[in-house]
Amino acid sequence: MKKRIAIIGASGYSGAELLKILLRHPQVTVSAVFANASAGKRVDELYPSFRAQSDLVYETYSPERTADADLVFIALPSGEAMKYVPQLLDAGRRVIDLGGDFRLQDASLYTKYYKHDHLAADYLPQAVYGLPEWNAAAIASAQLIANPGCYVTSALLPLLPLLKEGLIQPNGITISSLSGVSGAGRSSSVDLSFTEVNESVKAYKVGVHQHTPEIETVLHTFGGVPSTVTFVPHLIPITRGIYSTIVVQPATAVTSERIADVYAAHYASAPFVRTIGAAVPEIKHVQQTNYCDIGWKVYERNGQIILHSVIDNLVKGAAGQAVQNMNLMFGFDETTAL
Amino acid sequence: MKKRIAIIGASGYSGAELLKILLRHPQVTVSAVFANASAGKRVDELYPSFRAQSDLVYETYSPERTADADLVFIALPSGEAMKYVPQLLDAGRRVIDLGGDFRLQDASLYTKYYKHDHLAADYLPQAVYGLPEWNAAAIASAQLIANPGCYVTSALLPLLPLLKEGLIQPNGITISSLSGVSGAGRSSSVDLSFTEVNESVKAYKVGVHQHTPEIETVLHTFGGVPSTVTFVPHLIPITRGIYSTIVVQPATAVTSERIADVYAAHYASAPFVRTIGAAVPEIKHVQQTNYCDIGWKVYERNGQIILHSVIDNLVKGAAGQAVQNMNLMFGFDETTAL
Amino acid sequence: MKKRIAIIGASGYSGAELLKILLRHPQVTVSAVFANASAGKRVDELYPSFRAQSDLVYETYSPERTADADLVFIALPSGEAMKYVPQLLDAGRRVIDLGGDFRLQDASLYTKYYKHDHLAADYLPQAVYGLPEWNAAAIASAQLIANPGCYVTSALLPLLPLLKEGLIQPNGITISSLSGVSGAGRSSSVDLSFTEVNESVKAYKVGVHQHTPEIETVLHTFGGVPSTVTFVPHLIPITRGIYSTIVVQPATAVTSERIADVYAAHYASAPFVRTIGAAVPEIKHVQQTNYCDIGWKVYERNGQIILHSVIDNLVKGAAGQAVQNMNLMFGFDETTAL
Amino acid sequence: MKKRIAIIGASGYSGAELLKILLRHPQVTVSAVFANASAGKRVDELYPSFRAQSDLVYETYSPERTADADLVFIALPSGEAMKYVPQLLDAGRRVIDLGGDFRLQDASLYTKYYKHDHLAADYLPQAVYGLPEWNAAAIASAQLIANPGCYVTSALLPLLPLLKEGLIQPNGITISSLSGVSGAGRSSSVDLSFTEVNESVKAYKVGVHQHTPEIETVLHTFGGVPSTVTFVPHLIPITRGIYSTIVVQPATAVTSERIADVYAAHYASAPFVRTIGAAVPEIKHVQQTNYCDIGWKVYERNGQIILHSVIDNLVKGAAGQAVQNMNLMFGFDETTAL
Repeated sequence: MKKRIAIIGASGYSGAELLKILLRHPQVTVSAVFANASAGKRVDELYPSFRAQSDLVYETYSPERTADADLVFIALPSGEAMKYVPQLLDAGRRVIDLGGDFRLQDASLYTKYYKHDHLAADYLPQAVYGLPEWNAAAIASAQLIANPGCYVTSALLPLLPLLKEGLIQPNGITISSLSGVSGAGRSSSVDLSFTEVNESVKAYKVGVHQHTPEIETVLHTFGGVPSTVTFVPHLIPITRGIYSTIVVQPATAVTSERIADVYAAHYASAPFVRTIGAAVPEIKHVQQTNYCDIGWKVYERNGQIILHSVIDNLVKGAAGQAVQNMNLMFGFDETTAL
Repeated sequence: MKKRIAIIGASGYSGAELLKILLRHPQVTVSAVFANASAGKRVDELYPSFRAQSDLVYETYSPERTADADLVFIALPSGEAMKYVPQLLDAGRRVIDLGGDFRLQDASLYTKYYKHDHLAADYLPQAVYGLPEWNAAAIASAQLIANPGCYVTSALLPLLPLLKEGLIQPNGITISSLSGVSGAGRSSSVDLSFTEVNESVKAYKVGVHQHTPEIETVLHTFGGVPSTVTFVPHLIPITRGIYSTIVVQPATAVTSERIADVYAAHYASAPFVRTIGAAVPEIKHVQQTNYCDIGWKVYERNGQIILHSVIDNLVKGAAGQAVQNMNLMFGFDETTAL
Repeated sequence: MKKRIAIIGASGYSGAELLKILLRHPQVTVSAVFANASAGKRVDELYPSFRAQSDLVYETYSPERTADADLVFIALPSGEAMKYVPQLLDAGRRVIDLGGDFRLQDASLYTKYYKHDHLAADYLPQAVYGLPEWNAAAIASAQLIANPGCYVTSALLPLLPLLKEGLIQPNGITISSLSGVSGAGRSSSVDLSFTEVNESVKAYKVGVHQHTPEIETVLHTFGGVPSTVTFVPHLIPITRGIYSTIVVQPATAVTSERIADVYAAHYASAPFVRTIGAAVPEIKHVQQTNYCDIGWKVYERNGQIILHSVIDNLVKGAAGQAVQNMNLMFGFDETTAL
Repeated sequence: MKKRIAIIGASGYSGAELLKILLRHPQVTVSAVFANASAGKRVDELYPSFRAQSDLVYETYSPERTADADLVFIALPSGEAMKYVPQLLDAGRRVIDLGGDFRLQDASLYTKYYKHDHLAADYLPQAVYGLPEWNAAAIASAQLIANPGCYVTSALLPLLPLLKEGLIQPNGITISSLSGVSGAGRSSSVDLSFTEVNESVKAYKVGVHQHTPEIETVLHTFGGVPSTVTFVPHLIPITRGIYSTIVVQPATAVTSERIADVYAAHYASAPFVRTIGAAVPEIKHVQQTNYCDIGWKVYERNGQIILHSVIDNLVKGAAGQAVQNMNLMFGFDETTAL
C-alpha cells in the first residue's frame, strides 16, 4: 500500500521538483497539492513539463485534505511554514519543511536574520535537522524534519568531517558560494529577470544571509565545537547549481591523504556524497542529481585547505534531500527515486 | 551651442541606452530625464554603469521642464506617448517617439493590435516614419518622428529594396524572428525571469504581434505595393539582438548577384547597413552597434529567396536609430555618437 | 536474462546520453563501450557525472567484443558507421545507427549532402527508418535501424499527419529550426566555443544541410507524396533542445480543430507526442525527456498553418529515440527507461 | 601627426579588442597588424564586427614592418612575447606587452608557474609594470611596459591602498575570482565549448595559477610589504568580466569609513576606479568599459574585511589598460578612446 503524500506550496520551483521526484517514486502517491494562488489550475498548466505525467490540480489549503496524508511536505517561503506546522503536528501528521522555519533552535536568530519573529517557537525543539549523512537515526523516527538550506548543505558536507576530527580550526572559515537563479524561487522581480542576471555576477546579503547562522549552528551540533564562518553568496547566470569554495586553516599539519581518509570514513556508506580528491568538482556533474561532489587541496605554500563542493540546489539542496529524508522516515531504500 | 534634449521615460532599457548614446554626443546636452516611478533617484542609482558618467536625477514629468528643449525623446510603453505628444507638439517641441503610438496611420489598428483605442488620432498624420535609409528628407524637417519597431527594422531593411524593385512577390512573405529579452523592457515578470528564459525558446504572439501591421504598412508605403506577411517572433536566451530569417517568393527568376546590385543601389550611402551576400549574419557582429547586417541566398531547388538580418534591438532597433533620426533633424553628421 | 548491449562511439554526447539511459534500463546491461580515442579511460573520467554510476572503461573497437551483444548502438560521426555496419550485420548483430549513414536510400545524396561517397550502399535497402510513431511494426523486426536526425524528428512529427491526410500542400514548406549546441557534438572548435556562441545566433548550412533530403525522403515515404522543403537551421546559445517553426500552405480551408483531430487520430497511442493546440511549445518543457510537443495555429489572415515543435536533441532527437526503438525491437514496453 | 601603432598577435580576443579601441582613438593610426596563422586575411574576415570599420589585413610578422612604429603592442600567448621583445627594444621601439612575459622580475618564477624558462631574462629589469593608478610616472617614460594580468588587476586595485596604509595583514589574504570565458582566449578546446561551460562552474589551477606570483610581487612592490595570497580562479558561463571577492584580516580595528577615506585618498584622481562602499559591484556595470568598481564591508562578527571588485577582463584587464598606458606614454589624456 503506497504512502499518501501532500505538498503545501507545490507551485514554486522546489515544490515542482519535489512533485517530479515523487511522481516517479514507486512507493508513494501524491494525494494533494496545495498552492493558494494557483488553486484550480492543473499542475501542467503552471508547469507544462508535467503534461501527460500528472492530472493533479492545485488546491487551496484545507486541513481536512491533509488528514489522510502519511507525510506532508511544506515548500513555502520562510515565515509561512510556521503557520501550518503546529496544527499538522498536533493532528499527528509527519512533516518535512523545505524552508528555514525550523532549522534554527534559537528563536532570536529568526528575528535577526529572517527579519520576523518566530510564531511557533514552542515547536522548534521537536524539529530534527534533515541532513541524512549526519542524522539518519533521528530522521528515521522524526515527526518534524527541518530540511537543510541549499547553501548550507554545500558547506556542511565538506566541513563537518574535518571539523569533527579536529583537522581544521573552527574559526576563520571563509565560504564563497555561487548559486544559480532558481535558488531565489519562482518570483517576479526585475533583479531576477534574464536581462539583469545574464552576463553578470553579484554578491548579495554579504555577512547577513540567513544561512550563516544555520551553517554555524549545525557545525556546532555535529562538528562538536562552536565555530564562526564568513559566508559570501553570489548570484551567477545559471539556472541550477551551487558551487562552494571554502578556505580553512588547518589545526595541525594536514595532508591531502589524511583528508581523503577522514572523508572515506565518514561517507563510506553515504550514497550521495562523492569525494574526488584533487579533481575539481563542476556543477554540471551533479545537475539534476542528488549528489554532492567534494574536492580538496592542501595549499603547499601556507597549509590552508581549499575545499570545493557542488550540488544541484533544487535536488540535494531542496527536494531531493527532502525525499531522501522521506525514504529514511518510511524505511525505504535511501536512494529510491533519486 | 549644444542642443538641449529631454527624455520622457528615461528609466527603461531603451531610455537608458538613449541616455548612454547622448552622453557621448558632442553636440547635445541632456537637460532633463523624466521617469515618474523613479523620480528623485539618480540615474546611476538605477543604472550603476552611469557612475562617474552622469549626475542626472530622474524627475516627475512637468511641461515646464521641457519648455527649453530642442528635442524631446519619448521612451514609454505603448499607449503612453499619445498622452504627451499633443501638448508637446502644440507647444512647438520636436519629438521622437521610440514607442509604437504614432507608427500606424490607421487608428483602428491600435484597437486591434495594441488592445486600446488611440487617444490622439488627430496627430497621426503629422508623424513621420523614422527609417532613415528610406525617409531621410522627411525626417530632416519633421516635428514628430515615429521611431520604427525593433522587429520591424530588421524586416524592412532587407525586404524593401527587393519589393520596390519588383524582385519578390508581395504576398507569402514569412518572417521568423528571434529576439533577446531586453526587447521586452525592464519589467518584473515570472515569464522573463532568468530561470524561465534560460535554456529555452518560445514563440509568442504568433500572428497577432503588433509589429505585423507596422511591417505591412511600411512595406506598402516605401515598397509601393500592398503586401501581407506571416510574422512569428520568438524569445531566446540572449540579452540583446534580433535575428530575422525571411523567406520570400521571387517575382521572376532572380540571381544572388541581382539582389546584391539592388542592395548596393539602395544602400550605397547608408552608413549603417552592411550587405554581406552569401555570408550569414550573426548577432554578435552588430551587438552594441547601430548596424544592420543583411545576408541572402537564392535557394537553388525552388528559387525562394532566404534573407537574414541582424540588429541590436536596443540600438538600431530603438535608441541608436532614434539618435540617427535626431542627427538628421539637426543637420548633424548622421553617424555622430553611433 | 538481460539483453547485452554494446555501444560504438560511446564518448560523444549522444553516446553518453545513451549510456545514461541504458544504465537505468532494468532489462539491459551494457557489455562494452567503444571509443578509440579514449580507450583505456573510465567513462567517469570523460564524464564525471557517471561517478558511482558505472565502472565501464572505453575500449578500442574489436569485433570479438561485440560477438555476444544482442544489440549494437553506433553513435559515430557521419561516414563512420558505414565502416562497421556490414561486418556487424553479416555477423548477425542487430544494429541501431544514431548517425546519418543509413537514413537515405539514394546513395547519391550522400555524395551531394554529406560530401563523401557511401561505402556500404548495398546495405541501404536493409535499413529501417527508426521513427517509432510511424514505423513501429518494421522497427520491431528490423536488423538495422537508421535512427532519425534530430532536426528531422522535430519536422516530421508535426508534418506527417497533415501531409498524409491531405490537409497541406506538399511544396512550399518552410522550416526554421533552432538548435542547442550539443547537436554539434563534443568537439573542439573555435566556432563552438562559449565566447563565440553566447549572446549570438547564426543560421548555417542554409539550403545545404544534410537533414534536408532526409526530411523530404521520409515525408514522401510516410506522407505518401513527394514534397520539397526549405530548411534553415540556426545555432542558438542553449545546450540542449530544438525548436522548429514550420509554415505550410493549406491544401483546402483548414481549421485548428481539424488539425487537432488529425493529430489525435495519429498520435492517440504515441506515448511521446504531446499535441497542445494553440498553446505554444517551449524547449524547457521537454528538456531531458523523450517528448515531442507540438502546437499549431491557422493564421486567420492568409490561411497558412504555423506549426511549432520542440524536442531535446539528445533524447528524442538521438539517444532517447534510439532506446525507444530498442524497446520495440526487444518487445519491451516502449517507454521503459524513458 | 598621428602616432603609428603596430600590433603583434592581433587575431586573439585581446588583440581584437585593442584594435577596436585604437580605431576610435583620434591620435593614433594602426599601421600594421600581425597574426601569422591568419596572414592574408582581412581583420573583418576573422571579426566581421569590423566590417566597414577597417580595411586592415593580417600580416606575417616582419621586423621591417615595425620599423616606423611609434609603439608596438604584443598580444600573444605567454612565452611568445619574449621572442620579439629583445629585437624590438634593441631597435628602439617602445613596447607594451599584454601577456605575462615581463611582469615578474624573478625569472625562476616563469619556470615554476608558466612551465617554461625565460628566454630574455636580461630584459626583465627594463620592464615597467603597467598599472597606471600606481605607476604612472614610470609608465610615462618607459620603453617596455608589462601590462598587468586580468585577475591581477582586479585583486591589486582593492588591496594595494589597504596594504600600503597598514590597514590589513599581509598574509592570510584569500582571493576567490570568477572569470568569463574570453579570458581563456580564442581557442579551440572541448573544455571551452559552449556545451561544457554553459550551466556549470569550475575552479581551475587552484593554488598554481600564474597570476598568483604576479599578485604577490606587485603587492610587495607597491604595497611595501611581502605578502602571500591564496588565489582560487573559477570559470563561469559569461563571456566577459571578472568578479573578485577578497577576504582579508584587519591589522587593527578598521571601520568602513576609514577604508573609504583611504580609497578616496589613493584614487581621487584615478579616472577608472569607482569606489562604491557598501554597494556591491556587479559585472554588468563595467562590461565594455575600462572601469574597476570596488565595494567593501567590515564583517561585524569577526572584523574581517570583505572586498569585491569587478572589471571587464578584455578592457581594464587587458586592451583598455594597455591603451591607458599608451596614453600616458604619449602624453595624451589618460581617458582618450576609453
